[in-house]
Amino acid sequence: MTALHVDKYATSPHYSGSGSIRCGSGRRSLTVDATFDLRSEVRLVDGVFDPATPDLAEVYRPAGRCVAIVDATVDRLHGRALRAYFAAHDIPLETMVCRALEEDKNLDAVCRMAGFLGSDGCDLARDEPVLVVGGGVLTDTAGLACALLNRRTPYVMIGTSVVSAVDAGPSPRTCVNGTLMKNALGAYHPPVLTLVDRALFATLAPEHLRHGMAEIVKMAAVDDEELFGRLQRHGRALLDTRFATTGGGPELAAVADEVLFRSLYAYMRHEGTNMFETRQDRPHAYGHTWSTKFEPVAGLLHGHAVAVEMALTATLATLVGWLDTDGRDALLALCRDLGLAVHHPVIEDLELMKVAQETVRRKRGGSALWAVAPRGGLGRCDYLAEVEDSLLAEAVDRHRARCREFPDGGGGLGMYLRDARWT
Amino acid sequence: MTALHVDKYATSPHYSGSGSIRCGSGRRSLTVDATFDLRSEVRLVDGVFDPATPDLAEVYRPAGRCVAIVDATVDRLHGRALRAYFAAHDIPLETMVCRALEEDKNLDAVCRMAGFLGSDGCDLARDEPVLVVGGGVLTDTAGLACALLNRRTPYVMIGTSVVSAVDAGPSPRTCVNGTLMKNALGAYHPPVLTLVDRALFATLAPEHLRHGMAEIVKMAAVDDEELFGRLQRHGRALLDTRFATTGGGPELAAVADEVLFRSLYAYMRHEGTNMFETRQDRPHAYGHTWSTKFEPVAGLLHGHAVAVEMALTATLATLVGWLDTDGRDALLALCRDLGLAVHHPVIEDLELMKVAQETVRRKRGGSALWAVAPRGGLGRCDYLAEVEDSLLAEAVDRHRARCREFPDGGGGLGMYLRDARWT
Repeated sequence: MTALHVDKYATSPHYSGSGSIRCGSGRRSLTVDATFDLRSEVRLVDGVFDPATPDLAEVYRPAGRCVAIVDATVDRLHGRALRAYFAAHDIPLETMVCRALEEDKNLDAVCRMAGFLGSDGCDLARDEPVLVVGGGVLTDTAGLACALLNRRTPYVMIGTSVVSAVDAGPSPRTCVNGTLMKNALGAYHPPVLTLVDRALFATLAPEHLRHGMAEIVKMAAVDDEELFGRLQRHGRALLDTRFATTGGGPELAAVADEVLFRSLYAYMRHEGTNMFETRQDRPHAYGHTWSTKFEPVAGLLHGHAVAVEMALTATLATLVGWLDTDGRDALLALCRDLGLAVHHPVIEDLELMKVAQETVRRKRGGSALWAVAPRGGLGRCDYLAEVEDSLLAEAVDRHRARCREFPDGGGGLGMYLRDARWT
Repeated sequence: MTALHVDKYATSPHYSGSGSIRCGSGRRSLTVDATFDLRSEVRLVDGVFDPATPDLAEVYRPAGRCVAIVDATVDRLHGRALRAYFAAHDIPLETMVCRALEEDKNLDAVCRMAGFLGSDGCDLARDEPVLVVGGGVLTDTAGLACALLNRRTPYVMIGTSVVSAVDAGPSPRTCVNGTLMKNALGAYHPPVLTLVDRALFATLAPEHLRHGMAEIVKMAAVDDEELFGRLQRHGRALLDTRFATTGGGPELAAVADEVLFRSLYAYMRHEGTNMFETRQDRPHAYGHTWSTKFEPVAGLLHGHAVAVEMALTATLATLVGWLDTDGRDALLALCRDLGLAVHHPVIEDLELMKVAQETVRRKRGGSALWAVAPRGGLGRCDYLAEVEDSLLAEAVDRHRARCREFPDGGGGLGMYLRDARWT
């Protein structure tokens, strides 16, 4: 982790900024242009809590301690190893263990975390990185607590689920739910360092792994044809062996690392260079337009909802000449190989789908819809500025017809949130 | 208000960003450098709610409406004019009227505001600027609601108090109090446009004006010798006439505009070009080191607490050879001319002062204290990396002795929060 900012007066080595000011005519106005810079690193490691692995010690030895927020389930599974690691390095560790269910994703939780971290708790210095260990909900919530505390406190992320390792963890998009609005309140605040250790996947339930793999399929389908090929060849084995942690040999382990790295690279090449979401040409938004509404209505697990939208949008892409049916069918086959849903009756509710479009359009700044779809083959994409009602209806119709060819109609394994066993 | 960002895919014309990614060796790590850019304008206007004044209409006509958060007291005094303005321009106006006392500065208030603005309320588009009209507490709280909603919603600020017009309003530092920690949770999120109309000061109580003027004295003392001279000559008249709104002729009005513009320029030259507080060489932090602790302990109004620290630090500056006693005495005389406190027995509690130093040091990133003091005469400053206990004790001692020469011991008029009448 290299410092971005070395200056006598630096608030933190992790962030820098600059700006300029100019006066308007008549000394009645002034305009400031201001810039903020940050650096974020993502690293694959083997055995992050093995005392022989230097990464965490290198961050926390200089700070003289480690202040950590840890998911309650993760603490049960890995808390002993985490504590043994810091004990072996003789680095004091202070942890707050938090339940992190969807219902805990609110500003009260953020307040409690800030109380632990702030001047009435651990009294973090402005440049002292918090350690966050957990899945998607914890990274969203603890990330926001760090964003708000002293208006930006750095943190190191260890994603313990597939989603938090390859997507939500390194993401800058921290958030909580508003009283009525999901993910409505947040800040762009990526970790200064994300450590990805697939050994932590060894304890995940298949439903959990599968749902996380949807985000890898997503990046493959719109940004990395080679990654797509690897998933076609090895995706199922990676799922069955929990990324070569509960089975498979060194070859599959190498594939697992390559798949994770390619997925992270594809994701961060777009998300990380558009860290403040100032542009909407975002390939990683594939599968995240209509699903924002139909996922909660149908009660789907996020990854299945994303897969259903990816599949639908691939069919839509065939209608506008962006993708041939072979490409679409390759995507359907990969999703089905992994047990991900490719169809759900909820998408036939066109009124709901139109409400989703309008909501997303406003969230994207209002200029257009910018729905992502593969274009010119899998591994490439473009953005649909608008999707007319008639086109959407035709796409839904065609997609339903195509999925009727599957004996199960295109459903996914354990696709409902209510059925998910998390460990 | 000129657009910063014109791009087909732009989320908002107000913000832009960019970034780069590179791989580490062995395809085991990647590093992203990301940049965020914003533009913020500050404008003096006469009669902001006079339908002949185009500024607000120019912003809100393109949006097709104006969604506003208005301080309850301000709504009582200026709500009719605000509504008449938008009615005259045939622009629909939706307002949320909020009480904005210190006790309202919490995340619950932020949640309520976000509920009004968000998809279950006015359903703001990502690039639609909110209008915020009020004093320091409202700008902090509503500014944070805007920062969190969709992870950054632009807003236009009309500061109705002296503090919110020249300091807290154009400031990027939005915040609320944590459960135990004052101003502990926040975000850097300046308005895209701040409109300063001194006509709004006509209804302010003298205590309120005086306390706000401390922030102008601050910028004069550390950054603008000419502004200091104008305050020496006209500060009292500006106070007595509420910035030439309840008395004084066109000449004093011109002085009022010049004083406000100079103060804003000095402030934004430093705050606006260090918008994310990534450096601690911040002249506008003058008076804001020890006062963070002694202000609440003594129950002082913020402006008086700042003035006491400015005066003490000027004495300290004489001890380290940064300022001569004439400079120090000129500062004391100006503060006293305006009725601002220059001494309070609370600063003699050296244990409290040391706690303040340690707290501030951590808030500034831990490398040093960086206490601001005039150096080389008023209108210039430097930063004390450390203040040894013995130096602090000597400064407090000397300062007390100097202030004993004043018949009132250096107290301020209406300096206690409990005595403040706000309108």
